[in-house]
Amino acid sequence: MTLLLALDLAAALVFAVTGALVAARAQLDPIGFIFVACLTAVGGGTVRDLLLGREPVFWIADPAPVAVAGTAAIAVFFTHHLVASRLAVIVWLDAVALSVAVAAGVGVAYGLDLPVWTQLVMGIVTGCFGGLMRDVVCNEVPLVLKAGELYVTAALAGGAAAVLARELVGPGALALGACMLVTFALRAGSVRFGWRLPGWRERPPKPR
Amino acid sequence: MTLLLALDLAAALVFAVTGALVAARAQLDPIGFIFVACLTAVGGGTVRDLLLGREPVFWIADPAPVAVAGTAAIAVFFTHHLVASRLAVIVWLDAVALSVAVAAGVGVAYGLDLPVWTQLVMGIVTGCFGGLMRDVVCNEVPLVLKAGELYVTAALAGGAAAVLARELVGPGALALGACMLVTFALRAGSVRFGWRLPGWRERPPKPR
Amino acid sequence: MTLLLALDLAAALVFAVTGALVAARAQLDPIGFIFVACLTAVGGGTVRDLLLGREPVFWIADPAPVAVAGTAAIAVFFTHHLVASRLAVIVWLDAVALSVAVAAGVGVAYGLDLPVWTQLVMGIVTGCFGGLMRDVVCNEVPLVLKAGELYVTAALAGGAAAVLARELVGPGALALGACMLVTFALRAGSVRFGWRLPGWRERPPKPR
Repeated sequence: MTLLLALDLAAALVFAVTGALVAARAQLDPIGFIFVACLTAVGGGTVRDLLLGREPVFWIADPAPVAVAGTAAIAVFFTHHLVASRLAVIVWLDAVALSVAVAAGVGVAYGLDLPVWTQLVMGIVTGCFGGLMRDVVCNEVPLVLKAGELYVTAALAGGAAAVLARELVGPGALALGACMLVTFALRAGSVRFGWRLPGWRERPPKPR
Repeated sequence: MTLLLALDLAAALVFAVTGALVAARAQLDPIGFIFVACLTAVGGGTVRDLLLGREPVFWIADPAPVAVAGTAAIAVFFTHHLVASRLAVIVWLDAVALSVAVAAGVGVAYGLDLPVWTQLVMGIVTGCFGGLMRDVVCNEVPLVLKAGELYVTAALAGGAAAVLARELVGPGALALGACMLVTFALRAGSVRFGWRLPGWRERPPKPR
Repeated sequence: MTLLLALDLAAALVFAVTGALVAARAQLDPIGFIFVACLTAVGGGTVRDLLLGREPVFWIADPAPVAVAGTAAIAVFFTHHLVASRLAVIVWLDAVALSVAVAAGVGVAYGLDLPVWTQLVMGIVTGCFGGLMRDVVCNEVPLVLKAGELYVTAALAGGAAAVLARELVGPGALALGACMLVTFALRAGSVRFGWRLPGWRERPPKPR
């Protein structure tokens, strides 16, 4: 359980940085940085907890993720002018945060003895909904639904890797590590080398 | 209760197809199709369940709607190039799904002995929020809030028809059938013949 | 508790008017006015209740806020052509509603014996999420995240004022009044005189 808490915290930290960088793009003030950072940091885990009926949600039971996210937002506020291309940094940090959050979601669902398919769904929900809220609220094109990139696919594959590794070597840090590795590898391959699933086509005529 | 389950499944199926077609417009990959399809399929019922405190939400208790939605998404992925005008198909299928989902929402609230006004609200929530999430996430203009078209109105009238029919002929399939019929008739009349409530005006100057 | 109920009602009323005016900008029909008005009126309080595990949410337990919001929407529908600049009215009424809702959120959290930081967060959530939903759903730029304006900051300062006033003069109407006063003063100063936190810069080059 301590491992899961650490994962939730790590995901909150990295997601918060992406949220703060999106706030920088939107030219918000320090409190706006904190607001978007916290929304991104705890959004996915909050939806997961609401769906599973875990109440109050994790960050009300223990404020550490909010404190971490707020601190990260302030740190970014004072340093974001040092970052040359914020969008590139956002995309890569988002990939890291996605990997960690998927592992946390799968782990929480496994800890509640939920069936495998629910573990996979909770991995996707925990990983994707924080960034989705960030992008919808700030009027950016959601990373999660960008054409021609792996995102939900990476989360799903990472969840599957966690389940598989658990079968092979037992539950624990190794299974969650496999999850993070597979999620990040697929997402990074997509961002860097253009890996994608078949089916996406170059600009077909968009029907009215 | 079996009837309600069947309605939830039917709504999930048709909403999933609309979600998958929106995913096609956004040029997503197969997993993206499944993601948007599932969000659309279970979104409205999930909000309903959260508001009513039914936890875990219906599709975690029984994965059938998610399985149906995922299968539908894959089927659409392999066939959507056969569809001439995706938007027209989306609008009409959305009308069917709305009708079924409103009936499911009203029925669930009635089964929980909630007052009539809550039944009407839950009909609207179940019917409208899945499509609303689909459109917000995919950056489409929400069908539910399109100027000059009946949508929430159709859902409300359908709910009222269910309540009325229940008074006249007793609860059961007939009342829910009346709900679906009225909802679909109003929505279809709006799409096909331009039925609308008074109050909408042609392009007034939009104040700053 | 009666005081809190009155605050929830007052916030619902004023938020509903802002929602109806946004519906007017979107040229919706009367039922659309009611839909957006109710979403705005109860959105923030609903998220607060879901996060805190208060179920069913407040407006299902007692329909008064929904009734008030619906009535306000209809009243606006018949009179909104009298309003010269809807956007200015929306911004100012939104400031009033924000102030009242922040006080309601802080008060509810205090009534549940939650720690101070949770009270502040619940004030922000109750105050900001209704308007955020209104703007996201209706495709307006969210007021809450407008660059160079105090919004979340005003909500946070108002919550802090409530906590401080409670320490000084005890809980009750006075503390909540201080909350409303501080929130409104900061928000109004930002709208009218351009008050802002440091950190916002005039149009920096937006990195890709």
